[in-house]
Amino acid sequence: MTNHRIALIPGDGIGTEVLPPAQQVLDTVGRRHGFTFSCTSYDDWSCERYLREGAMMPADGLDQLRDKDAVLLGAVGRPDVPDHVSLWGLLIPIRRGFRQYVNLRPVRVFEGIDSPVRGATAGEVDFVVVRENVEGEYSEIGGRLHRGFPEEAAVQESVFTRAGVTRVLDYAFGLAASRGGRLTSATKSNGIVHTLPFWDELVAERGAAHPGVVWDQEHIDALAAKFVLEPARFDVVVGSNLFGDILSDLAAAVAGSIGIAPAANLNPEREFPSMFEPVHGSAPDIAGRGIANPLGAIWSAALMLDHLGHPAAARDVTDAIAAVLAKTDVRTPDLGGTATTAEFTEALLELL
Amino acid sequence: MTNHRIALIPGDGIGTEVLPPAQQVLDTVGRRHGFTFSCTSYDDWSCERYLREGAMMPADGLDQLRDKDAVLLGAVGRPDVPDHVSLWGLLIPIRRGFRQYVNLRPVRVFEGIDSPVRGATAGEVDFVVVRENVEGEYSEIGGRLHRGFPEEAAVQESVFTRAGVTRVLDYAFGLAASRGGRLTSATKSNGIVHTLPFWDELVAERGAAHPGVVWDQEHIDALAAKFVLEPARFDVVVGSNLFGDILSDLAAAVAGSIGIAPAANLNPEREFPSMFEPVHGSAPDIAGRGIANPLGAIWSAALMLDHLGHPAAARDVTDAIAAVLAKTDVRTPDLGGTATTAEFTEALLELL
Ligand SMILES: CC(C)[C@H](C(=O)O)[C@@H](O)C(=O)O
Ligand SMILES: CC(C)[C@H](C(=O)O)[C@@H](O)C(=O)O
Repeated sequence: MTNHRIALIPGDGIGTEVLPPAQQVLDTVGRRHGFTFSCTSYDDWSCERYLREGAMMPADGLDQLRDKDAVLLGAVGRPDVPDHVSLWGLLIPIRRGFRQYVNLRPVRVFEGIDSPVRGATAGEVDFVVVRENVEGEYSEIGGRLHRGFPEEAAVQESVFTRAGVTRVLDYAFGLAASRGGRLTSATKSNGIVHTLPFWDELVAERGAAHPGVVWDQEHIDALAAKFVLEPARFDVVVGSNLFGDILSDLAAAVAGSIGIAPAANLNPEREFPSMFEPVHGSAPDIAGRGIANPLGAIWSAALMLDHLGHPAAARDVTDAIAAVLAKTDVRTPDLGGTATTAEFTEALLELL
Repeated sequence: MTNHRIALIPGDGIGTEVLPPAQQVLDTVGRRHGFTFSCTSYDDWSCERYLREGAMMPADGLDQLRDKDAVLLGAVGRPDVPDHVSLWGLLIPIRRGFRQYVNLRPVRVFEGIDSPVRGATAGEVDFVVVRENVEGEYSEIGGRLHRGFPEEAAVQESVFTRAGVTRVLDYAFGLAASRGGRLTSATKSNGIVHTLPFWDELVAERGAAHPGVVWDQEHIDALAAKFVLEPARFDVVVGSNLFGDILSDLAAAVAGSIGIAPAANLNPEREFPSMFEPVHGSAPDIAGRGIANPLGAIWSAALMLDHLGHPAAARDVTDAIAAVLAKTDVRTPDLGGTATTAEFTEALLELL
């Protein structure tokens, strides 16, 4: 029987509350489909550890994860720890150290969820944002001059490499070919005149290499507007690290809930473990009350199943998410209900 | 009688169709409020000129505008001219050469306009995006190495200066103080770790200097989501060149129409003329058919009146815009009607 070694990093806040439900779901579908998980939990890789020891994870953290098949992460962040510390101390080193150059974020309006956008109806909005995940605008290159003086300035370098852009585009075009055959590239080459014209050239080049996919490009400002005006028209949307980040959060809002949206940080070549995490944060305002929405973590676990080679099991999980939303009115407070995390998970497990 | 010297730059596509209605409106309110305009039209500063002569405007273009009180621009861009050529050849040099460091974009849901967002109701959504307009992510600093080879890369420098950020923040805080007293700053200092932490520091510094304004900050991804989820909660939103661009287009979509949204490129010190332009582009698909929505240009003209010291006249124009939308069903096709530009303008002039 196949066994998968999974690293669990609950992290902070509600991160610790949404991983156990995801584990229950994984165990349940594993039993049905004939595979098992052995999980190692890294409970203290968190802001608490940072406050105690000055580091979010041990110095050999990546080595501890290296032999795992996948990483499932809850959420990272705490009000008393600066965001860039918690993120650059844990999340971003894993993304970069394990060459997880694809950040995949499915967007879907489920029946039973009210989208804030009138045109976003269940069944019609179903697309994927593919975000470049390891280079681009998120860079450590740059600094400050004349600190504290009137002439002070900060500079920051965006770096786009042919290798880095090409591989994520090839992933996105491949994904489009396996879905609706359409791809939209986010750009801003009219304003940002070095990196984004290069991105556009590579999109045209990779587009020519994938003749089965019909592609277009939109400037990020117009594209953000179209996510609201015509969300049903997208299939695969590909963007740089920053643009993909903005578009995927916006898309989650358009689809009706950030509490449900999942993310996969993929190393498609499987040289290293990939990492799966809900899009929502650690939500300190509701942490510890047992009312966090577990669907983001559970849907992320479904993406993990897909990546581990179990598409049928993954589909069972997304079907159960769709069913619990369409057929019951059990809901956590973020979706307008009164259920606890445990009750919501229970309702989903029954449908699984 | 006060006379204002206005430079008109119709530009391309529907730009040439929306300026005459704006001029009619200006003449009408000028007559009522006792001031006049002498307009100079720069009809061939356009993509056509670029295709003919290799430049969007003459070499001494800025000098020709320098003695004007304001510039009213239609739209720039044509499918057969690369965007970065048309923009960096006309729009951006004017913004930068005339130190128009504030890009002001009011967002308002009008009665009679259906917003695509359920929560965006008339009267409740009424905020302003203040965008830094002359530095930041839009920079000419950067380039390409190893062109055409596998190791090719493009780098682009964002530059944020203390002077540049402070002045736009002071404008935004001042505006917030004169409105609802609330300001939200767009950041992404968790991912972009040099320029945006500097931005955040300056926001805190200028916030302390404006104790009457309550301010907060949101990461751009979460903020884009909140524009859709809670559009009524904003008063003044301030962002960098790129973030302000994305947020203002998104906000226009949330408010129900990009065809209506106006922009002011302000030099608050009045050392140089400021420039007013609708947010919509040249719309080559409908250009030449006389059906462009003139409200973006007309509302931009209202912002110009405000800047020229005629707030009562400006209010007359925005009231007429509100009235034509609330009290008639005359609409251009982009708003679901069948009226021509001329008919729509006529209906508005009657209400003025
Ligand atoms: C056309 C483009 C360069 C411009 C910008 O991003 O500044 C436009 O989108 C705008 O918002 O005025
Ligand atoms: C927290 C932040 C650095 C992170 C990102 O922007 O990558 C988050 O927003 C995400 O999307 O995973």
